[in-house]
Order: sequence, then structure tokens, then C-alpha cells
Amino acid sequence: MSIAPPGPAWPPTPTVADSDSIGFDDWRADVRGRVLGEVVDFLREVRIDASLWPGAEDVLRQYATGGKGLRSTFMYLGWLCGAEPDVAALRAAASLELVHAFALLQDDVMDDAALRRGEPAAHVRFSRGYRHDDATAALRFGASAAILLGDMCLVWSEQMLRQSGLEASAAARVWPRYDAMRIELAIGQYTDLTNDVRRRPTMDDVLAIARAKSGNYTVARPLQLGAAMAGCDDGVLNMLTRYGTRVGEAFQLRDDLLGIFGSAAVTGKPEDSDLGQHKATTVVVAALDAATPAMRRELSELVGRPVLDHAALERCRDLIDASGAPERVEAMITDRVDDALHALDDGPLPPGRRTALEQMALLCTARQQ
Amino acid sequence: MSIAPPGPAWPPTPTVADSDSIGFDDWRADVRGRVLGEVVDFLREVRIDASLWPGAEDVLRQYATGGKGLRSTFMYLGWLCGAEPDVAALRAAASLELVHAFALLQDDVMDDAALRRGEPAAHVRFSRGYRHDDATAALRFGASAAILLGDMCLVWSEQMLRQSGLEASAAARVWPRYDAMRIELAIGQYTDLTNDVRRRPTMDDVLAIARAKSGNYTVARPLQLGAAMAGCDDGVLNMLTRYGTRVGEAFQLRDDLLGIFGSAAVTGKPEDSDLGQHKATTVVVAALDAATPAMRRELSELVGRPVLDHAALERCRDLIDASGAPERVEAMITDRVDDALHALDDGPLPPGRRTALEQMALLCTARQQ
Repeated sequence: MSIAPPGPAWPPTPTVADSDSIGFDDWRADVRGRVLGEVVDFLREVRIDASLWPGAEDVLRQYATGGKGLRSTFMYLGWLCGAEPDVAALRAAASLELVHAFALLQDDVMDDAALRRGEPAAHVRFSRGYRHDDATAALRFGASAAILLGDMCLVWSEQMLRQSGLEASAAARVWPRYDAMRIELAIGQYTDLTNDVRRRPTMDDVLAIARAKSGNYTVARPLQLGAAMAGCDDGVLNMLTRYGTRVGEAFQLRDDLLGIFGSAAVTGKPEDSDLGQHKATTVVVAALDAATPAMRRELSELVGRPVLDHAALERCRDLIDASGAPERVEAMITDRVDDALHALDDGPLPPGRRTALEQMALLCTARQQ
Repeated sequence: MSIAPPGPAWPPTPTVADSDSIGFDDWRADVRGRVLGEVVDFLREVRIDASLWPGAEDVLRQYATGGKGLRSTFMYLGWLCGAEPDVAALRAAASLELVHAFALLQDDVMDDAALRRGEPAAHVRFSRGYRHDDATAALRFGASAAILLGDMCLVWSEQMLRQSGLEASAAARVWPRYDAMRIELAIGQYTDLTNDVRRRPTMDDVLAIARAKSGNYTVARPLQLGAAMAGCDDGVLNMLTRYGTRVGEAFQLRDDLLGIFGSAAVTGKPEDSDLGQHKATTVVVAALDAATPAMRRELSELVGRPVLDHAALERCRDLIDASGAPERVEAMITDRVDDALHALDDGPLPPGRRTALEQMALLCTARQQ
């Protein structure tokens, strides 16, 4: 896929470069940099007194401004499918980084995750500063503090959207979807809590959970938010929904593969995070489906153990590998990305926007490492 | 204090009765009924599928529509200090019940509270429906579900305010304060987590925590929200702030007395909830200040124990009683209520509004049982 070479709009002007005038990689880096810069500026304004809450600022850096900015980029790209580059729209899109920080802070407590982006998770960090004589109280305190900082990010997300400078009509179009997405996110997380490999869910079950939990919320919903904000018609919205749903599923399938075979250096999480938590991911379900009866019995027994040591994890990986599940999931990813790219054939998008969507689909779902 | 007898505006018209035309008790019951009715209607619209999340609806009834509606009533009363009765303003005020439900759901997890309003707390209820073979996993699930339902109430609160039908100018005046109040609430809860009687805080320390944690948020902030929404001038806002700060402190002092001496039938909470959690409340600090050295040593030892049995709780109550702390706290309540009522002398309020404020101050701070 060819994209237009960098043109006169680079270096970016205050109106925000789009991918018609500069190459995709530069555009993507520019949008990410601007989005995270907007969040940094916003957090500087609402700043928490460090003497009141030691460590909060550093945790916000880790959770709110340390990511890839995927969701904001998709929301801004949705906007560009119906409107010209605009700083207020970019700021509105950036507010999704605070929704995401809220979700990560609280999910990490609920999953008792040890690491986030290669650093100790927020609840672990907060617990370290508390009563060294009572480990249970310290863990409880750390979890509560992380939940509360998550609540604050949730309030700030809408404050940032409200103060983005969007015109009233654009804001009125985005709010109902913004509310609905955040409710869907909480319900998706609730559903994920009930997801346990020991209950032997089917592939359809785990794909439905994947859509509710992260697929929709990473790609389709952000695109819809941006497109609705720009006043796109139903044709464009439907095209972006089909594209976004498929890319979101592929993104989650890639995440499931990384959750078992990815190194901590790539994922920023401990290597046992999925298997150790008895998560029924697409990869595990595909392996249980495809394994021989003897291997299925062994894998079931292993993933049902209360604790998996290093040898058990290694054996799980070998069994999953031998089942052919990784190849099956790779093929599912390819199918979904192909379908997503075909969806773009239906639409009247300018070439730069279409290229950006194509490249984002690949970027979200590519093999890593 | 005399109030106007019920007049021709009773039974209430769709424009919402105010306390000029009907007696205070009828007005208060009318406002509470309408506020809770608005929340019921809103929750019916955003309804969670019961097959998706069993028990969520009943927990919302308990947490969002089972209360006294104090915060909504104060917000609506703030509105009436600068404007006429209005259904949109009442609906905007009612959204505070969802903020409060959010706070209660999550506080109960953080405090590991057993009861709320005489029924098992949400996290206890949710844990009962989960895996009977693994008590730790069930507790974890219950806590996470209650946190997530709290998050949803936080999103719904602003959705309800946004959809209240307020004019744009009134909405623009209320949003910054609404955001600030919710952030203050989270920071107040964080501060309360660090509040431990074993650290021996001073009376000033615990009064500051009481203000941050519940005093401001129960009276002063709701009044300010309503008055700002109505476009009241600084004179009225300052008067309501002075009144609200003092009534809020008195409310918290009364709550501290009830937390130690109130029966479960009145508070809806277990009788050991404050002392058993090592909370440094005004009553305990007053007792430690005023006790003889021997009694202080004994009380300190008792409230520092990891677990207090029934006999230890009874002995704590006797020691606190003997110290004279209850009388001191009663006197502090009286001082604050007097000061709050004097604050109303400065303002140009119509008699019905002033009477409603006077009666609400007494209702929030009166001895119970």
C-alpha cells in the first residue's frame, strides 16, 4: 500500500496534520504525540497535591500517558472520515486515554496484575508506601487507592471531553455514545470476571467476551465516536463499524496469543498472566478443541490448577503449540483483517484516510517480536 | 419556627411545590418522593439485563433509591434560593443520588462493610452467587462486581444531569462544580483510608477528614451546586457555604456518635462498624483527649486491637461515656447548628426557603432513636 509522501504540511501545523499530506508513520507519530501531550496538559491543570497523595502523579504518567494511544487515534481517525483536521476533535479523542487509564487501573486490581507496562501495577506501588507492619492492610489500601485514582480518571475523561472546545452540535452527537461505551466497558469487565477456563466455554462464548471486553472498546466504538462527532452519515458509520468490529476481534486474538507466547519485554506483563489466572482465551479454547483426548485431559488438568509453576506453564505452552491452536488463531486474525480491509471498499473515503485505516489495522494485529 | 400552613398548591403541581406554600414536612416528603421517582425512572431507561447481571437491579434499589435523599434535597434547595420550582432542576439534583450510590458501593468494599441500610452490602450479595467451592475467589468477585456497579452509577450520574432538561446556561454553571465535587469525594475517601486511630490524630485532623469525606459533600457542595445552577450571586453563595459547612460538620459529628452508640436498627450498619475498623472519629479522639491517664491507656489498647469482641466493644463504649466525650460532641453539634442558623440572618431569602434550610439543619443533626 502506498501512501502520499511527506508534503508541505509537515512539520505539523496547529490544525493537526492528517495522513493525506504526510506519510502514515509520521502522521501516526504526530497524532500519538499530540494526544498524549493534550492529556499531560490536562492532568497538569487538575493536578493532585503530591503531599496529599504521594505517588499519584507518577502512576498517572504510567497509566494515562504511557500507552500507544490506539483508542484516541481511532477516534480521531473516525472524525477525519467526515471532517477536516481539528484541534478540538483531537482533544476530545485524547479524553479516551483517561477512560482507558480508568479501566486499566481498576482491571489491574480485579485481576491482581503484578505489572503494567513493565512497571509494578498501581495497587502494588500504593501498597508499598503503607504500614509495613500489616501486609493485609497494605494490600487493601493499595487496591482501594488504585480504584479511587481510576474513579478520578473516569470523571476527568468527561471533563476533558466537555472542555475540548467542540462545537455544541458535535458534542451533542458524541455524548450518548460516550456514555454507552463506558457502561459497555464496565459490563464487559463484569462478564470477563465470570470467564473461567474451568467452566469450559465455547469459542463463540470467548469471542463474545473478547468483543465486549476489549474489541469493541479498542476500535469500533472509538471510530464510531469520532465519526458521529463529525456528523458522518449511516453509510460511513456502518462501514467503520464493520471494519472496527473485525479489527477489534483480530486485536484481541493477537493479545490472546501474546498473553501466552509473548515475552514480558513485549507485553509489559508477567508471562503467566493469562494462564495463571485461568482465563479462557481464544487460544486455550482452540487448543482444547483441537487436542487429542490425552492432551486435552492433560491441558485441562494443568489450566485448572490453583497455581501454575514455571514447569507447568512451559508444559501448557508445549501442549497448546502441539495442538495447532496458534496456527488456527493466526488464520482467524488474517480472515478478520482481510474482511476489515474489504469493508473499506464500500466507502467514499479520501485515499489518505483509507490508507491510515489500512495501516492501523495492520499495526494493531501484526505479529510482534 | 412557624411555617406557612398547606395552601392551594398542595397536592403538588407538576412545577414542584416549594416550602412557601406548603408545610415543611409535606414539602420534604414531596421532594424526596419526586427525587427518588426520577432516579427510578432513569434507571428503568438504562436498565441492565438481569440475565447478564443477576441481582444488579435489586442492589441499585438498595443503594440508589433506598436513601433519605438528603444531597438531592440540599441541591434543589440551593436552586430554590435563586429560582422558582422547576422539574429540570429537580431532576438535575436527583442525579446526586447516583453519585452517592457510587460512593456507597465502593466505600462498602473498601471498608469491608457487612450491611448497608439493614441489608447485606452489595459486595457480600454479589459474592454469594459465585463459585461456592472457592470462598476467596467469591469474595474477590463480589468486591469487583460492586466496584463496577459503582463505576456505572458514576457514569449514570452525569448522564442524568446532562439529560435533565436544564437550560444550557444553567448547565454550564453547574458542571465545573459537579466535576470538582466528585474529585473531592474521591480524594476525601483516599484521605479517610489513611485515617487510623492507632496513629493518634488530633481533633483538628479528624474534623478536616470529616469535612473532606462527608461534610462538604452532604450539605455545602449540593447547596452550592443548586445555587450556582440558579445563578445566585456571591452573597447568597457565601451564606449557603457558611451554613452548609457548619451543618455538614454537625451531620458528621452526629454520624460519629451514632457509629458508636446508635443501634443497628437506626443506622442500618453493624454496631461495631466504626470501632471495629479503628476509625479515628471525633468521638474517640474527644474521649482520648478527656480521659484520665489510666482510662486513656485502656481505651487506646482496646481500639488498637486487631479484632474487638462484644465485651471489648461494650468496655469501649463505657470508657467513652465516662470520659464525657458524648456531651462534648453534643455541644459541638449545637454550636455548629447555631452558627449555621445565624448565617441565614445575612441573606435575603424568602421565608419559606429560610424555614426549609432551618428545618433541614435540624433534621440532619438531631438525636435519633
